[in-house]
Amino acid sequence: MTRFLAEPIAVPLGDPAGIGPEIIAKCWDHRHRFGLPPFLAIGDQRAIAAVWDGPVELITDPRQADAAFDLGLPLIQLASAEISIIPGHPTVPGAHSSLDALELGVGLARSGSASAVVTGPVAKEQLYRIGFAHPGQTEFVAERCGISQANVAMMLAGPTLRTIPATTHIPLAEVPGRLSTAMIECRARTVLRGLQRNFGIDQPRLAVAALNPHAGEGGALGREEIDIIAPAIATLAAEGWRVTGPHPADSLFHEAARARYDAALCMYHDQALVPLKALHFEEGVNVTLGLPIVRTAPDHGTAFDIAGQDKADPRAMAAAIRMAGECAAHRAAAQ
Amino acid sequence: MTRFLAEPIAVPLGDPAGIGPEIIAKCWDHRHRFGLPPFLAIGDQRAIAAVWDGPVELITDPRQADAAFDLGLPLIQLASAEISIIPGHPTVPGAHSSLDALELGVGLARSGSASAVVTGPVAKEQLYRIGFAHPGQTEFVAERCGISQANVAMMLAGPTLRTIPATTHIPLAEVPGRLSTAMIECRARTVLRGLQRNFGIDQPRLAVAALNPHAGEGGALGREEIDIIAPAIATLAAEGWRVTGPHPADSLFHEAARARYDAALCMYHDQALVPLKALHFEEGVNVTLGLPIVRTAPDHGTAFDIAGQDKADPRAMAAAIRMAGECAAHRAAAQ
Repeated sequence: MTRFLAEPIAVPLGDPAGIGPEIIAKCWDHRHRFGLPPFLAIGDQRAIAAVWDGPVELITDPRQADAAFDLGLPLIQLASAEISIIPGHPTVPGAHSSLDALELGVGLARSGSASAVVTGPVAKEQLYRIGFAHPGQTEFVAERCGISQANVAMMLAGPTLRTIPATTHIPLAEVPGRLSTAMIECRARTVLRGLQRNFGIDQPRLAVAALNPHAGEGGALGREEIDIIAPAIATLAAEGWRVTGPHPADSLFHEAARARYDAALCMYHDQALVPLKALHFEEGVNVTLGLPIVRTAPDHGTAFDIAGQDKADPRAMAAAIRMAGECAAHRAAAQ
Repeated sequence: MTRFLAEPIAVPLGDPAGIGPEIIAKCWDHRHRFGLPPFLAIGDQRAIAAVWDGPVELITDPRQADAAFDLGLPLIQLASAEISIIPGHPTVPGAHSSLDALELGVGLARSGSASAVVTGPVAKEQLYRIGFAHPGQTEFVAERCGISQANVAMMLAGPTLRTIPATTHIPLAEVPGRLSTAMIECRARTVLRGLQRNFGIDQPRLAVAALNPHAGEGGALGREEIDIIAPAIATLAAEGWRVTGPHPADSLFHEAARARYDAALCMYHDQALVPLKALHFEEGVNVTLGLPIVRTAPDHGTAFDIAGQDKADPRAMAAAIRMAGECAAHRAAAQ
């Protein structure tokens, strides 16, 4: 980090039985090599002790994190119940613990006590059992920030590519029916403002992908480009945004094409995720745009099948913490 | 080429006003660097003269190609009309010329006078005007070989990835309705046999991609995986084939995943083309599987906008010729 962050980054552990505690601890281990700004973990110390024997510095106030960071992994301890934590075996008390940590992490970022929140992976099935009513952490964070779902966007970011799926977790057959000109405009504005605010790009360039092969070939292979996507691009361009497309998706992600835009707005989940993970599988970061706070996450799940075996790769978590720091620095610089 | 090919590779120029003549001539220029086996061009000498001042060796019999290849680009001259060829400006006589060259190229491969046919890019719009009734060259070649559309498959191949779209040039909204268990089984068998025959892989490993995000998440995000794709995989596995899936598409194309299969069967055009072109844009080869002959093509079009400007990149054409030679060698070795 070349820029100074006034506050540390808050990192809720995620599910205590998942790989969250391990990769967060490994990030502290390799904080210099990864170039990470000071961060503090939030969760149950026992989850870390189960997978890591490095030093933990218990703190109660984020302002202690900076000094503690040189000595050990700063941790705000949240032990919500007398539970036994077995890596790879998620439990209902563990879900409570992960939710409490998430709440506190978002709260610290909202209050300005943390410069960003980076969320560890959670177990959705267990969360649903304790009344969690959101599809995922992104929606929860948005609600806690008072932002409607329509105005946030999920960006996947790697070293050479940023993509945003306009639709997310729905069957492919439902994608064409969900697209509308207004929705694409709205997503695009969220992304463009997010590129300005989180990434410090004054005049961001957005490439919009087509839905159909060959961008519909003038209507012969589908009319969504003509009827839905192109009008949205025209409106955005008239507002002064640098937006191009609809581009045939298969010509949008090679090296020379990627150099022509700052982010690609895709029409569906796999259109955005396939190229991102093909190119940057180990370092994909999920960035929520449209929030008053900076929130990132590694683009992977709890990986219960390898939890506790010292096999988990911390690179995506490290990339998420580093990117959160960069986004927070851009926001601070703009104030 | 380490293996000996008894016959040269036939390379119809494609549209005389496109980049075909230029990239084929450049392939001859760099034949040693690209490691290309002897090939002969088929088409109008004037199309080559318009964009290249290297030596052309006119031949009338493919058996002359081997000796001629050291002296210049061997060419079987087909001048179907007194036309003026202006790069970048396709004409109807030019379409006739490209079709005649294609016919001869396929014929030479069918008769065994050529070991393979590698087709230059054609102008479909002009071809349609002269009564060409096929969606593209692949379908034309299949028909000339007496093979039904259902039994050929289009493979896109790069240095570290081979993909095959189960459906091709149709609107995305029509994809779910076109999928059936029988169709996926049929495509998979064509691909598996093609991997054996063209690529010399005794026990090929095929990965089948899911249609929906997260492979449908047990039905919550779509049922095609459960109802259509998984039964096809079960049948193929029962036949003894090494077939896995349905795999979430976004976890199928990173380096470690690619090492686990020889080809990925995808459900739609962009699912196959996006990762292939993201990783191997400059060297993507289109290989038609299911034919009695070897047929490849560079995975790009006529690029009329840059024709005649010495800007065209010959790497995909070189990769197509090289791969055709390798496929022909595998077939010859198996006989």
